[in-house]
Order: sequence, then C-alpha cells, then structure tokens
Amino acid sequence: MEIILDEGAGFCFGVERALKMTEEVARATQERVYTIGPLIHNPQVIEELKGEGVEVVGEDADVHNAVSILRTHGVAPAAEQRLRSESKKVIDATCPYVKKSHQYAELLRKEDYHILIVGDRNHPEIKGVLGYAGKRVTVINTPEEADTMPHYPKLGVIIQTTYPIEKVQKILAKLVGRITEIRVFNTICDYTSDRQIAAANIARKVQLMYVIGGRNSANTSKLVEICKQQGTITRLIEVAEEIDESDLDNVERVGITAGASTPEVRISAVISRLEQIASARVTH
Amino acid sequence: MEIILDEGAGFCFGVERALKMTEEVARATQERVYTIGPLIHNPQVIEELKGEGVEVVGEDADVHNAVSILRTHGVAPAAEQRLRSESKKVIDATCPYVKKSHQYAELLRKEDYHILIVGDRNHPEIKGVLGYAGKRVTVINTPEEADTMPHYPKLGVIIQTTYPIEKVQKILAKLVGRITEIRVFNTICDYTSDRQIAAANIARKVQLMYVIGGRNSANTSKLVEICKQQGTITRLIEVAEEIDESDLDNVERVGITAGASTPEVRISAVISRLEQIASARVTH
Repeated sequence: MEIILDEGAGFCFGVERALKMTEEVARATQERVYTIGPLIHNPQVIEELKGEGVEVVGEDADVHNAVSILRTHGVAPAAEQRLRSESKKVIDATCPYVKKSHQYAELLRKEDYHILIVGDRNHPEIKGVLGYAGKRVTVINTPEEADTMPHYPKLGVIIQTTYPIEKVQKILAKLVGRITEIRVFNTICDYTSDRQIAAANIARKVQLMYVIGGRNSANTSKLVEICKQQGTITRLIEVAEEIDESDLDNVERVGITAGASTPEVRISAVISRLEQIASARVTH
Repeated sequence: MEIILDEGAGFCFGVERALKMTEEVARATQERVYTIGPLIHNPQVIEELKGEGVEVVGEDADVHNAVSILRTHGVAPAAEQRLRSESKKVIDATCPYVKKSHQYAELLRKEDYHILIVGDRNHPEIKGVLGYAGKRVTVINTPEEADTMPHYPKLGVIIQTTYPIEKVQKILAKLVGRITEIRVFNTICDYTSDRQIAAANIARKVQLMYVIGGRNSANTSKLVEICKQQGTITRLIEVAEEIDESDLDNVERVGITAGASTPEVRISAVISRLEQIASARVTH
C-alpha cells in the first residue's frame, strides 16, 4: 500500500502563532488564562492546552483578573472592547489574515459600500467580521444565493479565509453583470488554497483519502468536500485510532491531508498506523 | 420566408443624443462645424451630416473659429483641453456612459490603483479612457491575455461599453485568485448587452442573420461575432443593396439586428428588400 501525503499539511502560520502566544502567557502568568471560545478548531489540542491551565470560556464570561486570549478566528469589536476593559490583560491571537478582513470590512463600511460576506454566518470568523461590517451587510455561502441578491450601486466583497476560490469565481460571474461597482478583497489565505489544490491532486490519485482534523474545523470540512468531489472515498478523522481497517481492503494507494489546526504528531500517528496495517497484510 | 427582427435595434441613447446636438448646432451656427473623428461609426450617416455642413477632421486639425464636436466615443483630456482653448465653441457629444468610464478612470488613478482596461486599444473609446487612466495601466482584449498579467496589490477595472459580459466573467475568474483587491466598474451599457442577448436569441432561431451597421463599428462587429457563435450564417451589411440574393436560397427564417449607430431607415430598407425577394419567389 502506497501512502501519498500532502507535505504542506499541518499547522498554518496563524495557528502556530496563536499556540505559541498562548503557551508563553500560560507559562509566564500567575493569573487564570481564558481563551474566548476554542483557540483553534482541534479538540485534542484544546484538551492539551487545558492541561497547561488554559481554559475555554464563552464571550460573556467574567474575565476580571484573568488573561483573555482572542481566538484565531477573531472576535467582534464590541466583545473585544469589553474584554479589554475588564481583563487583567488581553492577548490578541487573531490570525493576521482574519485581522485583514476586519480592516477591509471597516474600510468598506466607512466608504458606504453594501458589504457582501461570502462564508458561513455561523462560523466564529464570520461573526467577528460581521461586527466590523455594520448593518448594511449580506452573508451568502453558495453561488446560488447570489442569484436572489438585489442590485446595490456599490458592493464590497469579503471572503471567509478558508473559502474555495472556485465558488468565489461563480459568485462574481453572477454579480458582475448586475452591479455597477464591485470591490473584492480576496481574503482567502494562501495556506488554505494551497492545501485545497494539493488535496484535490492527491485525491485524484488514490482510492481512499484521510483528512485529519477537528470535526468543528471549517477548513477541514472544505478539504473533505473537495476530496469527495474528485470521486474519492474520504474519511474525516481526528485521531489515528478512528481508522477503520476494513476501509483499506483492496486499497493500493491512500492519501493523507490535514486541517490547519492539526498537529504534526497526529499526522505521523496516522502514517504509522497505516504502515502497521500495510505490513501486517504483507506478512499475512 | 419569415423575418425575425430585434425590435430594440437601431440608434442607442448616446447616438441619438449626439446626432441631435450636432444637427442643432449645424443649423444654428454660421461657423464651420467639425467633429473630431467620425461622430458615430456609420459611414452613411456621416455622409449625410456632411451634406448638413458637418465635417470630420483629425485630432490635430486647426479649429480656430470653428465649432468642435467631441464624438460619441469621447476624446482624451489633453486633446479636449486644446479644443476647448482653440475652438470658438465646443459641443461635448461624448456618450454619457463613456463619460462615466472617464470619471472612473480618474478616480482609480487618484486612488493609486493599477488600471486594467478591458477592450480594444485601437478603438477611439479606449484611447479616450487611456488619457484619463494615466501611466499605470494595462489594456487587454481577451480572457487569455489575463493569464500573463503580473500581480498588482490594487487593480481597478474599466470595461469598454460594448464589451460582452461573458468575457468579463472569464477575465475576473482568472484574476480574483491572484490579486488582493479588484475593484470593477461595470461600464458596459445596458443597450449594448440587451442587443447582444437579443441577437443570440434570434440567431439560434434562424438560418441566416443580417447585422446592419458600419464596418468600423465595434458594437456591430460584436453582434456579428455573437451571431456566428450560435452557428448561424451571418452577413454584415451597411445598406440593403449589399444583400446577395443567392444567400437566401432555401432560407425559411432570416434574422435582423443592427448596430447602435444604424438609423431606422436602413433597417426598414433591409426588411423591404427581403420582403420583395420573398414575394418574388412565391410568385415565381
């Protein structure tokens, strides 16, 4: 059995940066350390952080005398303001790419655009961006939703950092003929789009694809969706223990990729497990 | 033989406005009346205007003591400035849609965008827009040309008023993944896109299509291109006399459309000629 791995898979820049900031403050401070919502979308990593004294709390938590860490997905400005006024200290671990989206949303709002946010309105990243976009805003998650959008003289577009570019192309094609001015900020992060391209390429070469990542992770779900679109059987797993051996019957080539919040150690564990299964079969 | 006519074909708003302004000034003034380049792209109409004392001159012509008319396609600001300082009077017959493109080009230049003009660099409309766009500018006429464009952090897009929207969609799809900010002003005029849609619909229903318009007219050429794309034999004619009877052998349904500079009288003449041919055949 041949294993094809996306060598670029694993922590993205924003996740690595956030974890480093969080571990540093957890080591250095005597205060309680809170992250406002899960720091990243990987339940195992969040569990490990808990062991280091980092607790996940809700946006309304009492943060007096605590260090509050803003999660990678960002928070809305009103929530940030409260945290800054009440916490002992605030660490902003918002992904710099998401921060850019906040800035663009603010700019478009000030310049009187109707703002179109392309992404999942229930994802914390989009909730944060919405806080900067103000009231004249529409959120859509599929090209079909663009069909029913009314005309706006000036439309400003911001895209969820993990959104696939192909769908953005379709949305723009639907809008450009109907809207006088469209100003698009391509806020998709390079890491995400690179992973998506690599995943599609690998999926086309293999019979079975493993995507390792949190079940609550948007970028991981997108990888699963993309691999399935190639017609490849695809399994989303958080840990190696979830591998179902029977899936590997008659499989000659298996592919591996991972979400942006998946530690390298989890990827290695999956590879080891697959190699173990393969060698057991050869011996047999 | 059935004749299917695009009922909306004929003079567009900008052409009608320009002709009215020109005829009025020609009647009212004692001075020479010049249009800087042909007022519209229809040789027969230009010939008729000559009979009313309106002469076509080049951009460098001596205009002292003359009334200078800025053509529907617009002129670059430097040329306009000279005309305004030297002419007895200037009549601005620039199409209001083209004027919008000038304003957008100026705005994008002032806000430090690299400007992408989508259209034909040899067309007078684009030459005029280029004058407002300044030096940081690229002109492309096909989606393929977008492939070789370098990255710009801020790209502002202006489109030739007669350009087909389908090609703009393809160009945007190629650029959006590579460029951080794209600001698109959809400067395609509604009249043009309505004619293009109607022409395609009619062409699909007929065996032979006549497009009536000037051989130097960009919007007329686009109509010919679109009709041919439907797999329909298409003839570009300026006047009814150009109809080749043998083209109509075994043709049951013939379609007619016309460019934005084509007078209604030319369209009627084509219909009359076709009806004449058809009735002669029935009698025969």
